[in-house]
Amino acid sequence: MNFTTQRCANLIRDFKKDGIDATLITGEHNVRYLTGFTGSSAYVIGTAKQFYIISDDRYADQIQEECKDIEVHIRPHNKTTLEATAELLTSLGSKAAGIEVDQVTLAFLQALTSASQSNFVPLHGKVESLRAVKDASEVEAIRVAVRAAERAFGMFGAMICETDTEKELADNMEAYIRRAGGNCASFPTIVAIGERGALPHAKPTNKILGEGSKLLVDWGADVNGYKSDITRTFKSPFGISPNRRNKQERSGFDLDVIHDILVKAQNAALATVGEGVDAKDVDAAARKVITDAGYGEYFVHGLGHGIGLEIHEAPRVRENSNDVLQPGMVITLEPGIYIPGWGGVRVEDDVLVKREGGVRLTTLAHDTALLG
Amino acid sequence: MNFTTQRCANLIRDFKKDGIDATLITGEHNVRYLTGFTGSSAYVIGTAKQFYIISDDRYADQIQEECKDIEVHIRPHNKTTLEATAELLTSLGSKAAGIEVDQVTLAFLQALTSASQSNFVPLHGKVESLRAVKDASEVEAIRVAVRAAERAFGMFGAMICETDTEKELADNMEAYIRRAGGNCASFPTIVAIGERGALPHAKPTNKILGEGSKLLVDWGADVNGYKSDITRTFKSPFGISPNRRNKQERSGFDLDVIHDILVKAQNAALATVGEGVDAKDVDAAARKVITDAGYGEYFVHGLGHGIGLEIHEAPRVRENSNDVLQPGMVITLEPGIYIPGWGGVRVEDDVLVKREGGVRLTTLAHDTALLG
Repeated sequence: MNFTTQRCANLIRDFKKDGIDATLITGEHNVRYLTGFTGSSAYVIGTAKQFYIISDDRYADQIQEECKDIEVHIRPHNKTTLEATAELLTSLGSKAAGIEVDQVTLAFLQALTSASQSNFVPLHGKVESLRAVKDASEVEAIRVAVRAAERAFGMFGAMICETDTEKELADNMEAYIRRAGGNCASFPTIVAIGERGALPHAKPTNKILGEGSKLLVDWGADVNGYKSDITRTFKSPFGISPNRRNKQERSGFDLDVIHDILVKAQNAALATVGEGVDAKDVDAAARKVITDAGYGEYFVHGLGHGIGLEIHEAPRVRENSNDVLQPGMVITLEPGIYIPGWGGVRVEDDVLVKREGGVRLTTLAHDTALLG
Repeated sequence: MNFTTQRCANLIRDFKKDGIDATLITGEHNVRYLTGFTGSSAYVIGTAKQFYIISDDRYADQIQEECKDIEVHIRPHNKTTLEATAELLTSLGSKAAGIEVDQVTLAFLQALTSASQSNFVPLHGKVESLRAVKDASEVEAIRVAVRAAERAFGMFGAMICETDTEKELADNMEAYIRRAGGNCASFPTIVAIGERGALPHAKPTNKILGEGSKLLVDWGADVNGYKSDITRTFKSPFGISPNRRNKQERSGFDLDVIHDILVKAQNAALATVGEGVDAKDVDAAARKVITDAGYGEYFVHGLGHGIGLEIHEAPRVRENSNDVLQPGMVITLEPGIYIPGWGGVRVEDDVLVKREGGVRLTTLAHDTALLG
C-alpha cells in the first residue's frame, strides 16, 4: 500500500463513530496529503470503498501523473467543480457526508447544499490530525527541506555584506533557498538587525547590517510542499563603532549569556520529548530554564509548533496546549528572549518525535559567531 | 476624508437595504482595504457611527502607525480575537450584523454565534465589490507595481543566459522583482520554454532556455500589497540548432504571425473598454479577432480579470461574466493561443478603465525579440 492510499484508509476509520457514509475534503493541503496532487482547484470525496478526486481539465494530465489508486473525475465545462462534486456525492448515494468546518465557507456550504441531496455533517480537523503524525515519506521530505535551508544558510553567511539592508538580506535568502533546491521560502524570511530583534515578527526594513550589534535570522525552505523552519541569532560579524556598541550594550544585557540560556532551555525541552508527553510540559521545561535565569517575562510566545505541508500545523507546543506528542510528529523548539530597546535572541530547531525521545533534524551549530 | 475613511463610509451605504445595524469584516484583504492594516489576525466591526479594528498586542504599535480614524480594540490575553469581537458586537447592542459568506468558515460562525448575542446576516462580496473600483491611491499603487515589474523585466533580459533552466529564470525573476522594489512576486512566475508554453499554468521545470525556440514569461510585482500582472512571449534569443527549430516550426505555426494576431486582439478589446461596457463584450472583441484568424479553438481561457490587493479579483472579463466596467477598475487583457506540441503565446497588459476608454498601465513594448 503506498503512502497516500494508507492516508485515505486512515481517514475512513472514524466514519461509523462520526455517523457518515462519505467525506468531502476541500482544504488544499488536505487534498494534497490524501492524493499527492500539487495543484489547486480539486476536491476529494472518500467512501469506505473508493476515493475520488474531482477537478477540471487544466489539471487532467497532472493528476494522472501525481495521483495513484484514486478515481479521477474531471468535470465537464458546463459545470463548476462544486456542482460536479455535489452530483458525484448524490450519485454515490451518500446520505450523510462529512465536511471540513475549518475549511468550508458559508457560501460554499450554501451552494453545496442546494446542488446536492446529501446531508452534511460538520467535522473538525480530521485530516489535520492525521497530518500531525508524519509517515516515513513525510519525515524524509522535511529532512530534505531542512537540508535545503541549511545549504541556503551557507550561501547567506558566505555572501553577507556590511552594507546589506534587512530587506536585501531577506531577499537574498529567498534566492539562496531556491538555489539550494527549494521551491521558495516556507514563509517570508525574518531578518532583524540590532534592537529590531525584539519584535518576534519583525518585517525587513532598510536598516543596514553594519548599524547593529546583533543579527537574528528566521528562515525555512519549501521543498516539494514540505517546510523547514530555523532561527539563529548572531553577534554582528562587522565591527560597529565602540560608541554605538556601548549604547546598545550598556543595558547590561549580553548576547552570549542570553544565547546560552536559550540553548540550555531548548536542550531541556528536547530532553522531555517522547511518546505520550504533554506538549505543554515541553514548553514548561524550556520556560523553567528561562524563568530561573531571570528572563521569564521576556519569553513572550509559545515554545513551538508542528511543521509539514503548512508552516504552522498541529501539534501546538505551548502553555495552554492539550496536544500529546506521538512518534512521527515534527515540531519546532524555538525559545526566545525579547528585550524592548535592546533586541531579541531566538534559537529554533526542527525536531522529530520518536518513541524514545526527540531527534534534532537541524544540524547547524548553535554559534553566535556568523563568520569563521 | 482620507481613503480608508471614505471606503468605510461606502460600506455602510447598504446597511438599511441589507437589514443590518453593523457589519463584521474578517477577510484579510478586506480588513486591509478598510483600515490600511498590513498584518494578519485582525477583524473590523463597522457601525453607522464608528469603525473598530480588533487585534492582539503583537500588532498594537503597527495598527497605531498604519490605521487612521478607526477605533483600536486590542484584546486581553485571556480572550481570542473572535471572543473579543463577539463581545464588542454585543456591547455595541447590535441586533443584526452582516458577515462575509465568502470569507467566514463554518467553524468561525459556530464559535461566533455561541460567543455573541447578535444575529448574523450572510452577505456576499460587499467589500470585494467596493474593491473592484480603485480610488486614486490604489491606481497609483498599481502603477508603482507595474513599474517595478517592468524594471525587473529589464534586469531579466539583461541577465538571461542560454543555459538557464525555467526554474532558474523564474527564481531570478523573483530576485529582480524584489531588487526593483517589490516585496515579492505577485504570484509564482511562469517561465515556459518551447512547447511548454502550451500549458497556460506551466510550472517551471529544469528545461533549458537553449532547448526551445520560444520563451513565455508571466510575472508581476507586489509593492505594498498591490499587484501587477504582465505576460510577454519571445523568440528564443539564442540560436537553436536548425534541425530542432525546423522540428518545432514545421507544424506550420509561426510565432510572429500568432503574436501579431494577439496584439490585434488585445487592441480590439482595449478599444471597447469604457464606462458601462459589459465585461463579456470586451472578451468577445478579442475572441472575434482570434476566431476570424482561425485560432479560436486555441484561446482556452477568459480574456482577463481585475487586479489589486489580490492577483485575481473582480471584475471577471470573460464570456460568461455579468460584470459591467466602471471607471477606476483595473483589469488584465491577456489573449493567448495555445497549441499542444508546438507551444503557446500570450500578450498580457494591465489596463485602467476610464470613463472615456481604457488606458494601458503597462509600457513594455510588444516585441518578440527579447535581446536588442
